[in-house]
Amino acid sequence: MEKLKVGIIGLGCRGYVITDGILAAMCKDDLEIKVVCDQFADRVKRTADTLERKTGYRPDEETDYKAVIARDDITAVIIMTSWRTHLPMAIEAMAAGKYVGIEVGGAYTLKECWDLIEAGKKYGNRLMFLENCCYGDRELMITRMVREGVMGEVIHCSGGYMHDLREEIINGKENRHYRLGNYLNRNCENYPTHELGPIAKLLDINNGNRFCTLTSTASKAGGLHEYALQNRPADDPLTTATFAQGDIITTVIKCARGETITITLDTTLPRYYSRGFTVRGTKAGYFGENDSLFIDGEHNSYEFKGSELWGNAKNYIDQYRHPIWQNYDPVGGHDGMDWLVYRAFVEAAKAEKRAPIDLYDAVTYMCITALSEQSIQRGGAPVDIPDFTEGRWFMRDDIDYDDPYCLEVKQPLRDGLV
Amino acid sequence: MEKLKVGIIGLGCRGYVITDGILAAMCKDDLEIKVVCDQFADRVKRTADTLERKTGYRPDEETDYKAVIARDDITAVIIMTSWRTHLPMAIEAMAAGKYVGIEVGGAYTLKECWDLIEAGKKYGNRLMFLENCCYGDRELMITRMVREGVMGEVIHCSGGYMHDLREEIINGKENRHYRLGNYLNRNCENYPTHELGPIAKLLDINNGNRFCTLTSTASKAGGLHEYALQNRPADDPLTTATFAQGDIITTVIKCARGETITITLDTTLPRYYSRGFTVRGTKAGYFGENDSLFIDGEHNSYEFKGSELWGNAKNYIDQYRHPIWQNYDPVGGHDGMDWLVYRAFVEAAKAEKRAPIDLYDAVTYMCITALSEQSIQRGGAPVDIPDFTEGRWFMRDDIDYDDPYCLEVKQPLRDGLV
Repeated sequence: MEKLKVGIIGLGCRGYVITDGILAAMCKDDLEIKVVCDQFADRVKRTADTLERKTGYRPDEETDYKAVIARDDITAVIIMTSWRTHLPMAIEAMAAGKYVGIEVGGAYTLKECWDLIEAGKKYGNRLMFLENCCYGDRELMITRMVREGVMGEVIHCSGGYMHDLREEIINGKENRHYRLGNYLNRNCENYPTHELGPIAKLLDINNGNRFCTLTSTASKAGGLHEYALQNRPADDPLTTATFAQGDIITTVIKCARGETITITLDTTLPRYYSRGFTVRGTKAGYFGENDSLFIDGEHNSYEFKGSELWGNAKNYIDQYRHPIWQNYDPVGGHDGMDWLVYRAFVEAAKAEKRAPIDLYDAVTYMCITALSEQSIQRGGAPVDIPDFTEGRWFMRDDIDYDDPYCLEVKQPLRDGLV
Repeated sequence: MEKLKVGIIGLGCRGYVITDGILAAMCKDDLEIKVVCDQFADRVKRTADTLERKTGYRPDEETDYKAVIARDDITAVIIMTSWRTHLPMAIEAMAAGKYVGIEVGGAYTLKECWDLIEAGKKYGNRLMFLENCCYGDRELMITRMVREGVMGEVIHCSGGYMHDLREEIINGKENRHYRLGNYLNRNCENYPTHELGPIAKLLDINNGNRFCTLTSTASKAGGLHEYALQNRPADDPLTTATFAQGDIITTVIKCARGETITITLDTTLPRYYSRGFTVRGTKAGYFGENDSLFIDGEHNSYEFKGSELWGNAKNYIDQYRHPIWQNYDPVGGHDGMDWLVYRAFVEAAKAEKRAPIDLYDAVTYMCITALSEQSIQRGGAPVDIPDFTEGRWFMRDDIDYDDPYCLEVKQPLRDGLV
């Protein structure tokens, strides 16, 4: 079997876990990791050690990503560095002829988003945005129900990145993580894509629909201060630091077809983990906060109180599980989503074809961060979301609907030509 | 026992149920209903029949509310008419020297809100906004936890009026309800107070805090069209009518102390009933969609997944139930909230004192409707929320903290004078 030869850039928590786990496992089949890279040599050595033990050969070690990109014995790179560097590194790698996978995060400026679009025009749509949640089991089940008409017309979706990261953020110096700097200096929806990716696919964004405007509002910042008081030494500067990042960021997006999407960043207050994935149609609703489905004809709001429905979505798995998840025995992290998104990447990179979550999707999701920052700075004023397809969003002709990892459906009549 | 002599104006669904239920029961104690009024004589007769059977005497019957207000054998009126008429009728009643209770709803203009403020200046703060959910059991339990510091600093709250009203709205002609006309013509957060009232009290709005700005975004309207198609004859004009009201309205309010509040109107798509009451602090969070509490020190996000916490709030009732609910055996509708809010009204009206949910609270909550309409019309632009206290919101000196139905706490230092 032909192997995809890759270089890995970025070996922090996410990079190490992915490389050590599912990528090492894929080396038994059709992947070959030629080189691993991080700015910190200890991370590189740790990953190389692990790979050698698990795969039987040792990849080259590198601390300069430019040297990785320049190699001619690899055809693809996977970038798992900081949010700040995903897009610039991706553009450099594309210019060097590489097929690129980038881990998720938000964009800092619209400029870097457009730069990626320009790179795509020069070097081809040869990038996959590795948004694992697009392959989530429940997300895909509900997407199938939408495609089959069970939900009726979809009117509203919501979700969030609702994950108590206080410990990780406050320990930013110890764990060399860039989140701490971000939370001290910026105030925005800094991590929109886990909830927004699946919603965007479900709503046909970039293939029949698009994001038009957003408003974003930040609460005050109190969570990290309280956490530092409770968990750091009294003389630690973090106990008196001012955090720019509001604890809760609420962003409302309006789409071309009239749907609204509410997304919430919620990472610095006590809570359980949730992506809050919620989809509301004219015939049914799915409510992620209690994993329930309410379907006209099966449920009646006068009979069923909320708590009687909690958890009932699992009763629909046999009927509506997405084909991608049928006969799939989850492997790897995050309930098996990671394996699926990385498999989709490897298949796309080997075939040199457009990825199921492509360059346009990447910037469409990532730009929400930069735009939310602007809206918050302007007191919640609506800001325009660019059409990165430059008018092609309702007439895409480059989608491979036969790709088993494809997340979209062909929409007759949408382009007005059929 | 001295009886409060009242006239009742508005005997539609809400007016009839309240009069027939808890008000009739209160006539055994300290209430006397002298006159009942509605524009429809059949409603008046039905209510008078019921009251006669239940109380042993028949109230006068009236179809002209002005005649009720003009009577000198009553000291108070309770207004349970349409949203449109609450404030104008209240102002007329106050001018006639009556103590006024008004049922909930939203304001159509800022003008009518300021008119009520002016009436208060002339005739006294002699109005209670009958927002029953301010006396909800869970809402008050969480409020107590906030007051006792369990939640830490409150950062964000959310809630909604999430109630599938499609049948009631579409049957507007048959049931003579004004919602249908509103949904055909207006697009706004038309019913904000059930969720906003309890949140406002919890956040000390009008007594140490205030609402400053909001943004509001409407989804497209699809739910009522689909419902009409499924449930009305094919030639019914409602099957082809255009509804102005978006199915989901998302409104984000920013407060003077930096808190954010997200409220959702969600009345025309299939769903279970919920007010979604959610309160997030730096030390704990309460999540209404699954009735769970997450408390630092008791729960750890690495250990507890969401579903393990669902429904755990009931475990805290013994420890934190609000004094108002201790030793209270719920009577009447809506889990006992109605009884509490009407008891509070009767007590305030008898004592001729400021009500626990007063004239300032009424317009502060009700104005959200008019302002959300403006924001939606302006593409989600932020709009200013008036300070109806005209600068007194952090120096209120008219609160009766000893009132057993008081929903507020004295805040030392807030006014800078103690």
